Amino acid sequence: MSDSRNSTRAGGVPPATVGRLPLYLRALGDFKAQGKQEVTSEELADAVKVTSAQLRKDLSYLGGLGTRGSGYKTEDLVATISSTLGVNREWPIVIVGCGNLGLALASYEGFSKRGFRLAALFDTAPDIVGIKVPAPDGEQITIKDISDLSSYVRMNNIQIAVITTPASSAQQVCDQLVNAGVYSIMTFAPCTLKVPSGVDVRQMDLASELQILTFHEQTKANEVISI
Amino acid sequence: MSDSRNSTRAGGVPPATVGRLPLYLRALGDFKAQGKQEVTSEELADAVKVTSAQLRKDLSYLGGLGTRGSGYKTEDLVATISSTLGVNREWPIVIVGCGNLGLALASYEGFSKRGFRLAALFDTAPDIVGIKVPAPDGEQITIKDISDLSSYVRMNNIQIAVITTPASSAQQVCDQLVNAGVYSIMTFAPCTLKVPSGVDVRQMDLASELQILTFHEQTKANEVISI
Repeated sequence: MSDSRNSTRAGGVPPATVGRLPLYLRALGDFKAQGKQEVTSEELADAVKVTSAQLRKDLSYLGGLGTRGSGYKTEDLVATISSTLGVNREWPIVIVGCGNLGLALASYEGFSKRGFRLAALFDTAPDIVGIKVPAPDGEQITIKDISDLSSYVRMNNIQIAVITTPASSAQQVCDQLVNAGVYSIMTFAPCTLKVPSGVDVRQMDLASELQILTFHEQTKANEVISI
Repeated sequence: MSDSRNSTRAGGVPPATVGRLPLYLRALGDFKAQGKQEVTSEELADAVKVTSAQLRKDLSYLGGLGTRGSGYKTEDLVATISSTLGVNREWPIVIVGCGNLGLALASYEGFSKRGFRLAALFDTAPDIVGIKVPAPDGEQITIKDISDLSSYVRMNNIQIAVITTPASSAQQVCDQLVNAGVYSIMTFAPCTLKVPSGVDVRQMDLASELQILTFHEQTKANEVISI
């Protein structure tokens, strides 16, 4: 996925390392669920499909963790990575755009389990605004009118938003969010958003991800042809 | 997003470059739509938020394109990148798992516009199998029973599949796909899939993407505190 700040080193941690920390955290969650109190760097690296040298280098940015030759305490490593990523607290998020994708994300269990709480949903369509949507925690969330977006975001100190509108309205929604103080945006709209410096955008470009797969498919086909 | 082959150089192109090629292609599509017949490396780099040095290095893997000081012909660059990525043809894809997310992807216009055709949808639930779903091209696609997955994939030479099942059934679906000859898989299930060497998996981990945003939010907050 593209990152609007992929050349900066926020907090002294290289962007590629930041991108891998959530994957380590997810794998550690699996190990913890299996009752493993310690993991070796080889086990963790293997779970995330990186080399153990890469893993050790990544973790070195988080300070003294584990010692050469012995493993990491699962619980300690979870705490350190969670704290580095800022997910040792709950983040309220809003989703703007309640088509199929927005509603799919509203009920996505992966968010609530990993530090995020769906605070509100917004749309423009009069026939959708007011509908109640079931959230993963069993609560019902009413879709709000987009005209209430700015005031809601300011009142509730929302810092993270997800855009699931069509490409044609994504920039306008993005501007509205940024003006209201949201500086971290995940977007599924298939277009590049223009944001001021200091605003982070994660563009989830599903067709681009598939095109990476076709590259490999084609390369495999060419290798077969050239044998 | 994580890539199960991120340490290999398929076709002599580094994985990071492969990951950026679809972004260049998307930006070039925008330039083309604006009627721009030539683009400079600065313009294209700026649209994708990389340095122009990075762009030139990436494009150098694709052979002689453009010349120093002058721009690239938009049409030529689109053709070269499309051909490198293998998207100068249409790829049929199947989606396994027809919950909210699967249905959202089934109607995702970004796929059909960029080289992919939804060939079939699969699910296990008897109350969903048989339902007709509208595809972006206006056609109706009937959800098939997952017991027909292997034979369908073999008969129709499907090479790319998208998994949108819950985590609990993702590995089983993945095994079924790989056994039937699908070696390129995009998965939204929040778990790491085990695949044999030679199979490419793109894991779309939405919570991990959000955690990258919280890292930046937290870093910004800490910077303010430390002033």
